[in-house]
Amino acid sequence: MASLEKAIQKIGPLDEEAMKAARERQDELTKPQGSLGRLEELSIKVAGIRGEATPLEHKAIIVMAADHGVVAEGVSLFPQEVTAQMVQNFLHGGAGINVLARHVGARVVVVDMGVAAELETHPHLISRKVALGTRNMMRGPAMSRAEAISAVEAGIEIMEREFEKGLDIVGTGDMGIANTTPSSAITAAITGEAVAEVTGRGTGIGDSQLAHKVRVIEETLKVNQPDPNDGLDVLAKVGGFEIGGLVGVMIGAAAHRIPIVIDGFVSGAAALIATRMAPKLSDFLIAAHLSAEIGHEVALKHLGLKPILDLRMRLGEGTGAALAIFIIEAAVRTLAEMATFSGAGVSEAEKRRVDY
Amino acid sequence: MASLEKAIQKIGPLDEEAMKAARERQDELTKPQGSLGRLEELSIKVAGIRGEATPLEHKAIIVMAADHGVVAEGVSLFPQEVTAQMVQNFLHGGAGINVLARHVGARVVVVDMGVAAELETHPHLISRKVALGTRNMMRGPAMSRAEAISAVEAGIEIMEREFEKGLDIVGTGDMGIANTTPSSAITAAITGEAVAEVTGRGTGIGDSQLAHKVRVIEETLKVNQPDPNDGLDVLAKVGGFEIGGLVGVMIGAAAHRIPIVIDGFVSGAAALIATRMAPKLSDFLIAAHLSAEIGHEVALKHLGLKPILDLRMRLGEGTGAALAIFIIEAAVRTLAEMATFSGAGVSEAEKRRVDY
Repeated sequence: MASLEKAIQKIGPLDEEAMKAARERQDELTKPQGSLGRLEELSIKVAGIRGEATPLEHKAIIVMAADHGVVAEGVSLFPQEVTAQMVQNFLHGGAGINVLARHVGARVVVVDMGVAAELETHPHLISRKVALGTRNMMRGPAMSRAEAISAVEAGIEIMEREFEKGLDIVGTGDMGIANTTPSSAITAAITGEAVAEVTGRGTGIGDSQLAHKVRVIEETLKVNQPDPNDGLDVLAKVGGFEIGGLVGVMIGAAAHRIPIVIDGFVSGAAALIATRMAPKLSDFLIAAHLSAEIGHEVALKHLGLKPILDLRMRLGEGTGAALAIFIIEAAVRTLAEMATFSGAGVSEAEKRRVDY
Repeated sequence: MASLEKAIQKIGPLDEEAMKAARERQDELTKPQGSLGRLEELSIKVAGIRGEATPLEHKAIIVMAADHGVVAEGVSLFPQEVTAQMVQNFLHGGAGINVLARHVGARVVVVDMGVAAELETHPHLISRKVALGTRNMMRGPAMSRAEAISAVEAGIEIMEREFEKGLDIVGTGDMGIANTTPSSAITAAITGEAVAEVTGRGTGIGDSQLAHKVRVIEETLKVNQPDPNDGLDVLAKVGGFEIGGLVGVMIGAAAHRIPIVIDGFVSGAAALIATRMAPKLSDFLIAAHLSAEIGHEVALKHLGLKPILDLRMRLGEGTGAALAIFIIEAAVRTLAEMATFSGAGVSEAEKRRVDY
């Protein structure tokens, strides 16, 4: 657990000086004060996280894949084999995240955290398989505490590698058939919200299957009794390997002052665990979008985050994060590249900012 | 009026075949059906507009600038000279729209439709000045009907030029100190909503100036009595030259089956006029974002459009349109580039789409 504790200790506060400078510059740019709305807020937040105003040159989406024993309870519309098939799709560039990452100029980092199949080696596949899928959490813990720590530390280590390659902003992504089920369990456990309020249709299940999914999660929580104040306990009992990996990515990114763009519901569940383990990490999170999966709004509210986009997406893989990274980049570029009133010879307003 | 009538007559219906093909392909892509949310809708709409699935290679933001006689009533925070200064800023690449257009790979087309100053010639400035600003519409019509037609026809002609250069999608942008005042007047006149419900703080005016602005617009509507069923009458009496130019851009774009991404409140007002003049045009409009300017939501509702983004922006210039073009491009690219279930060897869901 050495690398985990070390990374958590390394997480510092936001850079107040950099935020002040960004805020002041925003008010000197050739536009009515505040008129770039959330772009202004985002530019200031990113300045606080990074402590510098350099361009976001290196971007990555880290997509972590794993399987879930609870799939045996019939909670998903898709068969488990799809997780491994989609990993191949990621490696061949045909998935949604491949297209959107190309569109924003981000690299896609594909990690096998625990797919329930032996995957062929591939030059772009990082294998950190903790096990061949979690155990069925409705019958007992999804994984041991040691496995949970391994998953998180693998995420931290992968973030180290990516940081060394050059990384200015990171998006989180997930793939794992049935993984909205542990995500709902985590969200219910940590926020205290009723299971039915945080459980959605995942890939698109109908009403009766949804009711069944709710019962499975309720039973899971009853059987495991995760401690909401112990992030690792929640992860081990009702989590997943890709979720643990994403927790590690978040901790590692915050330790290196890299803005973390969390994707949808599964990433949100990982963020709930990560902020339990490292409360200071929450300053480094940016919510990409509001997923159509109902539990996501609950998770974001708990995290105190306001999503950038609301496009009724619910695909995962980091697709929402990729689009949001583009908006964040736009925010950073307007701050860096726009002319100032004095520089461009534009007259200023007669009065200063009013509440809008 | 020949070119105006000809362009309006050229506007056809959406291509239902292309939309059907896009819809079917969406359901074969490697993702749960419907999981790309609004991206799927946008890809289908663009297919219907363009009738083909080629990439959006050529993008332009057309920024039209003009001044407004009603500025004399003290409705803005900025002096009128800022319109001309901002045109220079556009030409030097320092404005918000320049940064965001670079970010999305769109060209910026700057048009002087009626700035109240003689601008120096510049290789990138298109001059279609109808007059040195409109007249003060609180005292009578902002422009003559002939001037309104000239403004619209200039917009159509500029769209022809851009179309010939190559254009796959267009965003509309505006610059004109005080131009939220005519935009509110247009929105009130066409939607029938009360002036106070469609009048906002523009560049950031305080409460008392806002109350004054509402009175100015109410008086303007009383003095001019624009006919809400006659778009040109509304434009002439309570509009602006850049607004007329944008009406022409929209008509010209629809005639060429080019998706029109309308920016914020001023573009929304232009769209209200354009759809009065050419009802079939509304199928070709895509709302970029929800402006913080309160009248914009009313205008979008009247147009039956749902904004893509909500970033509390209120800058104009086409800044919201630029960001939205990126999202639309993402939608088109996912449809074109994602692998299908059969192509990628991914198992399909056990059941088909459910209502989500």
